[in-house]
Amino acid sequence: MDSQTKAPWEAIGSCFVDHYYRHFETDRSFLQSLYIDSSCLTWEGEKCHGKKAIIDKLTSLPFKKIKHCITTQDHQPTPDSCVLSMVVGQLKADEDLILGFHQSFLLKCMNNSWVCMNDVFRLALHNFDGQGQQQHCVN
Amino acid sequence: MDSQTKAPWEAIGSCFVDHYYRHFETDRSFLQSLYIDSSCLTWEGEKCHGKKAIIDKLTSLPFKKIKHCITTQDHQPTPDSCVLSMVVGQLKADEDLILGFHQSFLLKCMNNSWVCMNDVFRLALHNFDGQGQQQHCVN
Repeated sequence: MDSQTKAPWEAIGSCFVDHYYRHFETDRSFLQSLYIDSSCLTWEGEKCHGKKAIIDKLTSLPFKKIKHCITTQDHQPTPDSCVLSMVVGQLKADEDLILGFHQSFLLKCMNNSWVCMNDVFRLALHNFDGQGQQQHCVN
Repeated sequence: MDSQTKAPWEAIGSCFVDHYYRHFETDRSFLQSLYIDSSCLTWEGEKCHGKKAIIDKLTSLPFKKIKHCITTQDHQPTPDSCVLSMVVGQLKADEDLILGFHQSFLLKCMNNSWVCMNDVFRLALHNFDGQGQQQHCVN
């Protein structure tokens, strides 16, 4: 299905997701155009509020190169004309192990541009212990 | 930190998450009180719109018992006075393998109650192939 036949929120969400991970991989400072001063990011539990704090966090992450692979992305319209996007994927930072990740975005249209108001990122670390073996908390 | 010292959105989100998974495990029909007619659910890519369609989906899921273990939950306030919650965890349905899952909720206060406007659920199936082995799409 091409973007012209997608529901509007699907087209907006998938366009945002493409743009976000492409720039995350090439130049994270470029992502500042996606956030505003009231945006919130929670990155692995660490809370950042506002464009500057968010970009400071994203540009100081301790890896030189990163590659994402998106497994699934889901997009929904919200009652306040926003778009909620949830991404599930895998990433490889520098020479580290490949890890699963999950990221949710709440996108809002402001002045004819879609910006990210809310951003929550988590690695799927429950799947691994220190030796790279799976461990489970459900019996 | 107890609920009285949490930020309001943390208390609202964590209370919702506790309530949701407790009732999901014991009586899914009880979850209908959490949705309204404009709520959206995307369950493993399948879209359901409205309280009835959502509860029909949740109560027809093909397992008899399920247990969740929450690894992380993050909550943020949104610009429209909603709460965005992202949950990462593991679940075991009947005698199936333990699987990772990710779920995002957008909660809104309506008539003094918090309801779920948006709900997106995905299993972390990228970690497994048919033989239960890990497979990766990032090289």
